Amino acid sequence: MADKTKDQENQMWGGRFSRGPAAIMEEINASIDIDKRLWREDIAGSKAHAAMLAGAGIISTDDAKTIIAGLDQIAGEIERGEFKFSAALEDIHMNIEARLKVIIGETAGRLHTARSRNDQVATDFRLWVRGACDELEQALKALMRALAKKAETHANFVMPGFTHLQIAQPITFGHHLLAYVEMFARDASRFADAQKRMNECPLGAAALAGTSFPIDRNATAQALGFDRPSANSLDAVSSRDFAIETLSAAAITGIHLSRLAEEIVFWTSSQFGFVRLSDAYSTGSSIMPQKRNPDAAELVRAKTGRIVAALNNLLIVMKGLPLAYSKDMQEDKAATFDAIDALALSLAAMTGMISDLTADHARMLSAAGEGYSTATDLADWLVRVLNIPFRDAHHITGAIVAIAENKNLALDELPLADMQRVEPRITQDIFDVLSATASAASRTSYGGAAPDNVKAQASRWLKELDREI
Amino acid sequence: MADKTKDQENQMWGGRFSRGPAAIMEEINASIDIDKRLWREDIAGSKAHAAMLAGAGIISTDDAKTIIAGLDQIAGEIERGEFKFSAALEDIHMNIEARLKVIIGETAGRLHTARSRNDQVATDFRLWVRGACDELEQALKALMRALAKKAETHANFVMPGFTHLQIAQPITFGHHLLAYVEMFARDASRFADAQKRMNECPLGAAALAGTSFPIDRNATAQALGFDRPSANSLDAVSSRDFAIETLSAAAITGIHLSRLAEEIVFWTSSQFGFVRLSDAYSTGSSIMPQKRNPDAAELVRAKTGRIVAALNNLLIVMKGLPLAYSKDMQEDKAATFDAIDALALSLAAMTGMISDLTADHARMLSAAGEGYSTATDLADWLVRVLNIPFRDAHHITGAIVAIAENKNLALDELPLADMQRVEPRITQDIFDVLSATASAASRTSYGGAAPDNVKAQASRWLKELDREI
Amino acid sequence: MADKTKDQENQMWGGRFSRGPAAIMEEINASIDIDKRLWREDIAGSKAHAAMLAGAGIISTDDAKTIIAGLDQIAGEIERGEFKFSAALEDIHMNIEARLKVIIGETAGRLHTARSRNDQVATDFRLWVRGACDELEQALKALMRALAKKAETHANFVMPGFTHLQIAQPITFGHHLLAYVEMFARDASRFADAQKRMNECPLGAAALAGTSFPIDRNATAQALGFDRPSANSLDAVSSRDFAIETLSAAAITGIHLSRLAEEIVFWTSSQFGFVRLSDAYSTGSSIMPQKRNPDAAELVRAKTGRIVAALNNLLIVMKGLPLAYSKDMQEDKAATFDAIDALALSLAAMTGMISDLTADHARMLSAAGEGYSTATDLADWLVRVLNIPFRDAHHITGAIVAIAENKNLALDELPLADMQRVEPRITQDIFDVLSATASAASRTSYGGAAPDNVKAQASRWLKELDREI
Amino acid sequence: MADKTKDQENQMWGGRFSRGPAAIMEEINASIDIDKRLWREDIAGSKAHAAMLAGAGIISTDDAKTIIAGLDQIAGEIERGEFKFSAALEDIHMNIEARLKVIIGETAGRLHTARSRNDQVATDFRLWVRGACDELEQALKALMRALAKKAETHANFVMPGFTHLQIAQPITFGHHLLAYVEMFARDASRFADAQKRMNECPLGAAALAGTSFPIDRNATAQALGFDRPSANSLDAVSSRDFAIETLSAAAITGIHLSRLAEEIVFWTSSQFGFVRLSDAYSTGSSIMPQKRNPDAAELVRAKTGRIVAALNNLLIVMKGLPLAYSKDMQEDKAATFDAIDALALSLAAMTGMISDLTADHARMLSAAGEGYSTATDLADWLVRVLNIPFRDAHHITGAIVAIAENKNLALDELPLADMQRVEPRITQDIFDVLSATASAASRTSYGGAAPDNVKAQASRWLKELDREI
Repeated sequence: MADKTKDQENQMWGGRFSRGPAAIMEEINASIDIDKRLWREDIAGSKAHAAMLAGAGIISTDDAKTIIAGLDQIAGEIERGEFKFSAALEDIHMNIEARLKVIIGETAGRLHTARSRNDQVATDFRLWVRGACDELEQALKALMRALAKKAETHANFVMPGFTHLQIAQPITFGHHLLAYVEMFARDASRFADAQKRMNECPLGAAALAGTSFPIDRNATAQALGFDRPSANSLDAVSSRDFAIETLSAAAITGIHLSRLAEEIVFWTSSQFGFVRLSDAYSTGSSIMPQKRNPDAAELVRAKTGRIVAALNNLLIVMKGLPLAYSKDMQEDKAATFDAIDALALSLAAMTGMISDLTADHARMLSAAGEGYSTATDLADWLVRVLNIPFRDAHHITGAIVAIAENKNLALDELPLADMQRVEPRITQDIFDVLSATASAASRTSYGGAAPDNVKAQASRWLKELDREI
Repeated sequence: MADKTKDQENQMWGGRFSRGPAAIMEEINASIDIDKRLWREDIAGSKAHAAMLAGAGIISTDDAKTIIAGLDQIAGEIERGEFKFSAALEDIHMNIEARLKVIIGETAGRLHTARSRNDQVATDFRLWVRGACDELEQALKALMRALAKKAETHANFVMPGFTHLQIAQPITFGHHLLAYVEMFARDASRFADAQKRMNECPLGAAALAGTSFPIDRNATAQALGFDRPSANSLDAVSSRDFAIETLSAAAITGIHLSRLAEEIVFWTSSQFGFVRLSDAYSTGSSIMPQKRNPDAAELVRAKTGRIVAALNNLLIVMKGLPLAYSKDMQEDKAATFDAIDALALSLAAMTGMISDLTADHARMLSAAGEGYSTATDLADWLVRVLNIPFRDAHHITGAIVAIAENKNLALDELPLADMQRVEPRITQDIFDVLSATASAASRTSYGGAAPDNVKAQASRWLKELDREI
Repeated sequence: MADKTKDQENQMWGGRFSRGPAAIMEEINASIDIDKRLWREDIAGSKAHAAMLAGAGIISTDDAKTIIAGLDQIAGEIERGEFKFSAALEDIHMNIEARLKVIIGETAGRLHTARSRNDQVATDFRLWVRGACDELEQALKALMRALAKKAETHANFVMPGFTHLQIAQPITFGHHLLAYVEMFARDASRFADAQKRMNECPLGAAALAGTSFPIDRNATAQALGFDRPSANSLDAVSSRDFAIETLSAAAITGIHLSRLAEEIVFWTSSQFGFVRLSDAYSTGSSIMPQKRNPDAAELVRAKTGRIVAALNNLLIVMKGLPLAYSKDMQEDKAATFDAIDALALSLAAMTGMISDLTADHARMLSAAGEGYSTATDLADWLVRVLNIPFRDAHHITGAIVAIAENKNLALDELPLADMQRVEPRITQDIFDVLSATASAASRTSYGGAAPDNVKAQASRWLKELDREI
Repeated sequence: MADKTKDQENQMWGGRFSRGPAAIMEEINASIDIDKRLWREDIAGSKAHAAMLAGAGIISTDDAKTIIAGLDQIAGEIERGEFKFSAALEDIHMNIEARLKVIIGETAGRLHTARSRNDQVATDFRLWVRGACDELEQALKALMRALAKKAETHANFVMPGFTHLQIAQPITFGHHLLAYVEMFARDASRFADAQKRMNECPLGAAALAGTSFPIDRNATAQALGFDRPSANSLDAVSSRDFAIETLSAAAITGIHLSRLAEEIVFWTSSQFGFVRLSDAYSTGSSIMPQKRNPDAAELVRAKTGRIVAALNNLLIVMKGLPLAYSKDMQEDKAATFDAIDALALSLAAMTGMISDLTADHARMLSAAGEGYSTATDLADWLVRVLNIPFRDAHHITGAIVAIAENKNLALDELPLADMQRVEPRITQDIFDVLSATASAASRTSYGGAAPDNVKAQASRWLKELDREI
């Protein structure tokens, strides 16, 4: 394979293997490229810790003030993009600590009293994940609102309901969208549950065993918005189930998004033609200007892989790790950040797509009447009006559909006489239930597809979402 | 590869490809081997539905009584092992329905009014998963109790705490065990949250769109112990997030079990020798009678793979599925049953192992003093007593440890004079903090490893567990 | 939740926790329910080992004969269903060994000379996986043949080629099917590569270190159809990459099947209507006799989850396991058997579906002309005939398509004058390339969609498949 | 949770949701941040395509020269870091194409004749993955060489062989290391097989259907080092099994690395103390200067999660995707790049660790004699010398070990008389086999642990590796 542009590849790869151990070790060991994203949490945690140390008389109030002022200065530097991150200093904690020493001198050394990087990183990461849950809940609610609004205005757009992607029974577009509101509401409640469960403060667990200093763990917990301090120091520094649980909520949300995305891909195909995405969320073709590729929907569908993989990743990393901290855990952040970013972006894109799409009622309604989709309505009529046992009604209906199919007629086009040949007691009233619109309108049981139900449910959701936000 | 016993393999495999389409289709399509496990739920759901139909005047009270009596008879037949399951009838629903028709005649046909296999299976499976959550919570509490009891009686067994599997600081065995109590408590609360979230009744969603019959969904929901009927019929028959969430709680529990199992494998190795499993949970060797292989711990560790895989399986199955029911969903049950069984078995085995194990305090304590594990205590003393900034104290301690290492002495064996050469203000009092036992005892901060903390936490947990069960 | 039929659940679950340690241990430890499937391999391995021991003078020829006769008797008993498997004897090896002792007495004890369960199970499982690879290759070739045959007879069925599920360019149905032949051919070659790589005999590695007996490992390797004995005894008993590689080949095959299955689900929807499955591979509805749910395709699509999960399972089980044998590895077989069975069944079902399906050329051709699918052909004409740079040709075409769209005309319906207004040099010849049929026929580059290409490729594949089988 | 620094989080997150659709779409759609890494492959592909177009008379030789010169100029700009990548131009292909137009004007437009982004990206990515396989094979061979060298010099370092992490039989450190050489050799051969299978050129498949231009696909295939052009245009642009297969080879390699990494973590613990890592590959502690945390080994172990996750990710992305190109496939690159980088880094780190580690023979040898690890040798002596059936010899040995255990003596310390009480025919010769060193030396069967075997195998491997590189 002499032609394979080996030289080029060597430039890409070779470096790694010709470098010395120190460079390889720095590359595998340093996490600053990833964990610098925790700077706000790290500084917030350090400020709370310094204030607590002073409050408990472990350091002087003056020292605490100096430390806090130094940390505020660093926050400003990072915010303004002036801070110089160093891989030699490995991680965000050491980067900030080193800078603090430059700014305030050896008083900086007192900040680390009764603390270790192990409880520090556990606290920082937990704060970040907690914040992510907040934001994902908000993002889910924005999507739910977009869906509920669209459902409200499309409560009576009759469309086919599918099973096995075969037309089954008429439903309404609003009803279909509200199914997703239910799913995303459960997803939001999963993030809320995860958030509540994780809201214990690890700070004070120190390296792994707690400390002999008379620290006030309630004070730091409260200052950082935690419900309480964690009750076991080993657990506090060794556990990452809070991140895994968040990723599993994210994975389930991703699955729900993938289903809606798949449907958008169908619906926008020329075979279905139920829905048209806005320009903003389609990708065109200069050669085929009418073309609207549903790229955003496809990407949302694909991001599921990334999110599920992050969950899988973190489960695998944690499998079989003895207590307490092992360096393996450093891998927790890259996976979590990547998945949460992918999910937040997917939610934003889906919210935009739903808000902007237009539905083609004519095509939906036409499809809703195909495939003898009201056969069940006929059977139900036989049960309800003629008191025929359901299973028998089912067979009578089958015979009538077979006749209609032979004649190449829709059910509501089939002459009454044909039906009566199968079941003489059928009357003209049967035609009240055989259209797609009538069928959808009849689904008035709680949770059913009838337009009035849809309006009521959409309105309930919109009110609830208004109240919450 | 002529010797490869082809003939034998052909017997195993060839059948499949020489059989006709009907046989292949039955093999891939039938689910009765798996879903017959849902028979109790299926009968309970049908009884509730029949009672509701009569209550709402959709069928007669006599018909309902006949149906319920027939279902009770079937329950008896299955319970006694007399029921003949048929693959030709595909699934548990059809098996029971067909038998009901034999027993009570055509009245059986009325049971299916305002119902479909889609809402029926969604209800059955939800009931089963809900029950599994109950049992897993109980199993987790049994394990927590075993751990807390063992922690209470081993609150002052000093052992090394590890980071990176290197000896870091002395802790106590009780403290270590209680870390897992915290983890398993969160695991139990995840099953409880999942259970609460899933507790909506799909019955009445019918095929996908609801029904035009005047059904009373609250009645069936209440009869089956659900909090309410589900609010959207499409969601009710199309969603399996309740199972995925349960599997993700199971996967996290599996990870926690794998960590404890890994530690048991270490602890029982002759290199560690901290713990001895009972005969019941070890596998011996007739040739080496002293040998005690920790097979149960290894199998618990390995089952994690199966549980995580089931989660992955169901996420993959559901990815990109359009609403409403697709046959793909039939795969939900095999994965869920397999994972829940594996987890329940793992919890039972771990509970047994923990209850029965004996700890070797002498070996633990001896190891706890190795590796200069009290260096942090020395540094903390310098901070606390001499008011040296922590980072400086850290460096002073490093210099003293280096001297001790050169002299091949433990820290508490190093003459005071050697320490004073590094920091003259060190006094004889320093020896109060340099033993492993003193170090562990000093970790009195909330959540710390001190024996008194451990006793208090163990007692708190045991009381709480007593109250709950 | 008093109504939750607790009693019933207790019957299902409670047993486990009220049983003693011995029962739990037997349940988690015994593998006979799974590994009895290895009986043929176990007996073949033992016969080869006994013959080798005699050949090397380690046991007498008479003893070898007695052992082999005993093993043959056991094989007969199992084959005839007369063998009684015992969970107390844990696994297939001990079950057969115990029975052998009953049949031939203490000579049975000589069979285990220079052998251990560790190399025995490694050999048995490797033989089984090797056989599975054989069968999967045959199954893949059967599917390839079905696809190639269908492609040959449908080489000129013009259908739309999709990107983003939007109509892009006309292709042919045969060409589409042949794309899968390429994929499945690579899949088959992966199983062949895996098989070749795994074909080293572990027998003789003994427990982990080899043996001091003068065994002849080449003899057993040859007798069992292996290419050579494995070169390192620790690797021989500790590695399961042969199973993981086979599962990864299975997972990739599963993905390819899922794509074809998804397309079948689309194609059989009433919106597409390209394809009709046979009765054998559809599931009907007694109420809607025209309905043909593509259940088999959906199940094939769903089985992907199970196969990918098995791969994930075994990767997780093996992660971080120290050498040599750990009990964790016992989990390898359940996952592998389950995935291979699912794949074999999926391949059989897909082969049946493809063989039996009928294609609707009229609907395919009609769709192929929609969506200005020949716009690229117009642009290519401009490049080829008028020597316009491609990107410019692309823009000219865009302008023409826009005009056609405004007039609601297909490209081949648009008057020449309209085209000439955009590019005056366009001539009447342009209409030779604007129909879907002409477009497909023009794709004559190697690997292109033109019917002649398809016929040639289909014929090449059928010849190759004939030669191989 | 008022204290939860909401404002800070809003800064991190809020942006996304307050931005307009265009920004969200650009963010989800643009891939340039990821795929710019393909610039060398993209330019190589374009140069080959331009040369072929000229060779086939589709464009003029002058145009080809101009295009190639322009592409070379762009390569220089990128190499020197002068090229300005633009997210608005989405991907690497459009970035380079746009720049080419600026440099050479509208001739640039001719480059895209008979090509599409679909075959272009398939070619680029395949070239990159092919190169990655090359480099990973080299990296694996470097690791194999480091292991084989270490094995050669440690062929007679007797250490305990473990099963279930319990001491089982004496082996040698060299033998243990060579087990990994076997595994990594198979891993390298997997990358080689993948590479061979993927080495077909997609260029010329165009958008999906091939082209009507008289292109010479053999020419481009040859110019880019491919074995042949791909035989089906749909397959060429739609398949990503080449990347999945590479990721599965990477995942298996990751598992092997995780096992060795886990062992290094054990071996460097103070409980085992078998191995000492060099300073370069340990992380120290300023407070405990003797401490050497095996961070690099832990990180290598953890990276397995990332690699397995990437495999899982891409399998999930591709599941159920219809042909031909869907935008979902854009996710292929991030996962692949991330996993390959992680694996290359892990291999480099492991190679460094192995090369630099020092083994402590005294501790290994001492542990090798513990736990009656030579009991099997005693049993084998009984079989070999006294012709006792193996199973009986096994029981006799068990009785002798029980006596030794009661007396708290090692087997080679137990008086002959004690043994003779169990089996009178045992002679003084028995002591020749009871030491760990004698036991290891006796494992001379092919593939066994005996030092001479190890030297021979190490030497064989080193010669083979020298020949290959």
